[in-house]
Amino acid sequence: LFGLGAIGRGIGRLAAQRQEIEIAGAVDIAPELAGRPLAEVLEMEAPGLVENDAAAALARAKPALVLHATGSYLPDVLPQLLTCARAGANVVSTCEELSYPYKRHVELAKQLDAEARAGNMTMLGTGVNPGFVMDTLAVVLSGVCQEVEHVRLLRVVDVATRREQLQRKVGAGLTIEEFKARAAGGRFGHVGLQESCWLLAEALGWRLDSLEERLEPEPGADGLARGQRQTAVGKIGERTVIEALVLMAAGAEARDDIELRGRPPVHMTIEGGVAGDTATAAVVVNAARRVLDARPGLITMLDLPPITGVGSR
Amino acid sequence: LFGLGAIGRGIGRLAAQRQEIEIAGAVDIAPELAGRPLAEVLEMEAPGLVENDAAAALARAKPALVLHATGSYLPDVLPQLLTCARAGANVVSTCEELSYPYKRHVELAKQLDAEARAGNMTMLGTGVNPGFVMDTLAVVLSGVCQEVEHVRLLRVVDVATRREQLQRKVGAGLTIEEFKARAAGGRFGHVGLQESCWLLAEALGWRLDSLEERLEPEPGADGLARGQRQTAVGKIGERTVIEALVLMAAGAEARDDIELRGRPPVHMTIEGGVAGDTATAAVVVNAARRVLDARPGLITMLDLPPITGVGSR
Repeated sequence: LFGLGAIGRGIGRLAAQRQEIEIAGAVDIAPELAGRPLAEVLEMEAPGLVENDAAAALARAKPALVLHATGSYLPDVLPQLLTCARAGANVVSTCEELSYPYKRHVELAKQLDAEARAGNMTMLGTGVNPGFVMDTLAVVLSGVCQEVEHVRLLRVVDVATRREQLQRKVGAGLTIEEFKARAAGGRFGHVGLQESCWLLAEALGWRLDSLEERLEPEPGADGLARGQRQTAVGKIGERTVIEALVLMAAGAEARDDIELRGRPPVHMTIEGGVAGDTATAAVVVNAARRVLDARPGLITMLDLPPITGVGSR
Repeated sequence: LFGLGAIGRGIGRLAAQRQEIEIAGAVDIAPELAGRPLAEVLEMEAPGLVENDAAAALARAKPALVLHATGSYLPDVLPQLLTCARAGANVVSTCEELSYPYKRHVELAKQLDAEARAGNMTMLGTGVNPGFVMDTLAVVLSGVCQEVEHVRLLRVVDVATRREQLQRKVGAGLTIEEFKARAAGGRFGHVGLQESCWLLAEALGWRLDSLEERLEPEPGADGLARGQRQTAVGKIGERTVIEALVLMAAGAEARDDIELRGRPPVHMTIEGGVAGDTATAAVVVNAARRVLDARPGLITMLDLPPITGVGSR
């Protein structure tokens, strides 16, 4: 386990419950976690103590696979991923920008792929979004289409039902001016929307000429932002082929919705939406077996057979 | 192209439109089709003449892959599949019982796998149902679940909007007595519901102790059957873990619906349902590329990365 924040702890708890998984070690860079029993951090039975030094922990534990959940931005987590590659440990990471890094981080993607191959390991970025509801699921649904003309992706999350950390992350409670200032400052908003669109475009054989993303406050009745409205529009020439909207706001009617215009058309809805944190832990842990069987290198969800949940006993 | 009935012609028309596919030959066992231009049968531009002798056609054309659509029951189409295996041609087949043959046809499945490996070819049974809406899609959705307790699968088809052949196939217009007599005679009703359940159970790691299927008439206002209601219930011990219903009836409200009870729960609906024949042709043709890249042997949809549609140019 590499990373023991909210998501990493969820992953750790699920891994600790899975019969086929033996936890070989746990790493987090937070100094205050070093030396603490993992069982205490996860609040359930789990072996060993948390360590700060990933390279040392990997050398000692020699895990087959690392479940990595430390950050959204690839440049930030790159050294951690390289440490895993050089230790020859396969990686499933929640890093949003790793889910399809070939556009935003061309050179880093090449470096990661080369190092992964050199380490004879496989590296995958996934999760529920990006990784599932706005990309893999749309790709899978396209399998029933002879031709796809246009894809509309919608994810609505009611942040009032989610972690306070997420509520802050989407700007709930900010004034519209504060929201806009933060948006202008960068590193704000949902990470991975473009990655989802790029992955989908690759799957459908579309070369996008443009992919424009916008981040706006979603105003509440009190005039404050109740969250964010983030859109991406992908075009081939003047033709819009992908329209994606992530609406994360307090009180929004949660759902996932995918509409493929094509032959035949497909319109899918998941009522209430796929629950964020629980599902992210699920996708990451469920992916482990498939990643162990995959070819070495940097891969995406397009390379893997279905990641499956586990039926209860 | 092997099989030029309604589904086979749909597959042929899609294949003829795909840039990456070159049609190397067309076979149908119907004597009246022999020697007819394929273009005439498909009603679009396509090369060559239809042949009756599959072995001869395969020996001449040496196709990389056969798109096979001749029948629902594995024992019937087995000689055709073996002919393909011995010619070393990969196969994507619409044969419903081939989609998961390991339970209903244990020995035939072993034989097919052995012959496929010997021929260094890959063999897949797929389509929209079985193959997608009541199995693969549920499996893919389970990827967001930490644990799955129960799966409910529902497919409703309004046969009034479909081929007359399908309306007859589901018993629309029969008296209730006629329907029951036909049901008792076997080879009636949707083929593949058990196969879908078995594939899903394998994906979730469930060993079903029982899987009971029932076929009943769906009565209309006039007292005649307007179609069929087919159910399957899979149990582990006394616990019901899979409930599947295929309702195919004139005037039914078409939809596909999958409900996973688990952590988190997932409830997906495709309004109007995935259109049957168009989608079957799509799945089969879209699967071709993935099957060419797959390991030799008899495989299922669980072995393949996502089958994807093609974005329009």
